[in-house]
Amino acid sequence: LGALTITPVVGLPEIAAGDDLAALIAAAVQTPLADGDVVVIAHKAISKAEGRVRALAEVSPAARAQEIAAAHGKDARLVQVVLDEAACLRRAERGILIAVTRHGYVCANAGVDASNAPSVDTVIMLPLDPDGTARVLRARLGELTGADVGVLVTDSFGRAWRRGQVDVAIGCAGLTPLDDWRGRRDASGRELKATAIAIADELAAAADLARRKDSAVPVVVIRGAGEFVSAGLDGPGAAALVRPLEEDLFR
Amino acid sequence: LGALTITPVVGLPEIAAGDDLAALIAAAVQTPLADGDVVVIAHKAISKAEGRVRALAEVSPAARAQEIAAAHGKDARLVQVVLDEAACLRRAERGILIAVTRHGYVCANAGVDASNAPSVDTVIMLPLDPDGTARVLRARLGELTGADVGVLVTDSFGRAWRRGQVDVAIGCAGLTPLDDWRGRRDASGRELKATAIAIADELAAAADLARRKDSAVPVVVIRGAGEFVSAGLDGPGAAALVRPLEEDLFR
Repeated sequence: LGALTITPVVGLPEIAAGDDLAALIAAAVQTPLADGDVVVIAHKAISKAEGRVRALAEVSPAARAQEIAAAHGKDARLVQVVLDEAACLRRAERGILIAVTRHGYVCANAGVDASNAPSVDTVIMLPLDPDGTARVLRARLGELTGADVGVLVTDSFGRAWRRGQVDVAIGCAGLTPLDDWRGRRDASGRELKATAIAIADELAAAADLARRKDSAVPVVVIRGAGEFVSAGLDGPGAAALVRPLEEDLFR
Repeated sequence: LGALTITPVVGLPEIAAGDDLAALIAAAVQTPLADGDVVVIAHKAISKAEGRVRALAEVSPAARAQEIAAAHGKDARLVQVVLDEAACLRRAERGILIAVTRHGYVCANAGVDASNAPSVDTVIMLPLDPDGTARVLRARLGELTGADVGVLVTDSFGRAWRRGQVDVAIGCAGLTPLDDWRGRRDASGRELKATAIAIADELAAAADLARRKDSAVPVVVIRGAGEFVSAGLDGPGAAALVRPLEEDLFR
């Protein structure tokens, strides 16, 4: 059992569409990346690199967006972007829209966010395929550094039952998102009740502690979690964390 | 912005009722505790020290427990303990009971667990007052070591919408459970959408990465999160993380 270290990557430039994010990260890390490191990236850096940004001035809200906006005191253009990003709108209450994203994640505003956007009146959307982006970044980081790392893409989500947001995984490659404990035994040999530990979400939460959201530090490196880095394999991605309705007893 | 380190405390003895847990921790840490450290304790160590263990042989299941047990293929004595611990049973499905604990936490089996129990046919319950215990441990650790630390008590909970369990805070003292971001601004001066970050839950998740559930390492020290350690004050405890029904849009 060893210690983990969680280190923010400081000095990254503001990310713009088309940037080679892996190259920027490889150049910015203070300690060279090593096998088993996990590179945790707040999704906004990826969304900016992939041009997943919309200018509200160019959005024409349709009737449904206008109705929801009027009922909840929101900008109809922002509501239109949320509807465009949502597979389904679950709730609209007190100015908060809770939606299921196309990836199957449940979060406020379908992940659309105005804070940390490149300019006023633009909003940032989630990456189209965060697991795919994680795979690409992992391969590119391997090319550039020779290190076999895990890559994790995160966002801050609210939760049922508990106050406050925590960072969770919305994409990953090269690591075990769920550590399956079924059939394992405790220290005295009894079968464990836990079925699976959401390692990718625990890594996301840990990384968030090392940066402050107002300081523009989107990337954090976690060292010491190499047992969860699946050497040479991309793995199932964060898609494995989406809980199907029929097995969800908690909502 | 500095790095965090997460270090498991190895070599603790098996905890028994009446043990001075703070003294055992102070003696076992490899590096002396320092101001701003967060001592994260899996609740089972506390439950054992506080005698929150029941022998199933001494439990007489009442009619309701027998009915639920029969319908779900469970041990009626275990169901009785769950009902005794629950403020309310929310769901019983496929052998899984989801309950609200007396503290207001929503989890499987009201937190009652047989794995890592002191002997076969005993079960471990949650501490009666995990925030209170955290305050006592914090004071005692301060006496023993001179360090002003945060104390966090954790358990593994399943979640709505997402597969897998993550460790969360069920008790804390001397740290900020919720970091309130309302009114703060992003790097370009815009108001942030996030309202509060559940720091205590992120610390709990981070700590879980440094121990394996089959290795009997209940205590982890997090260094580098001192900005969330509320010097000299116990703070509101993990009770502040319970989301009232009327403000919960996620369930």
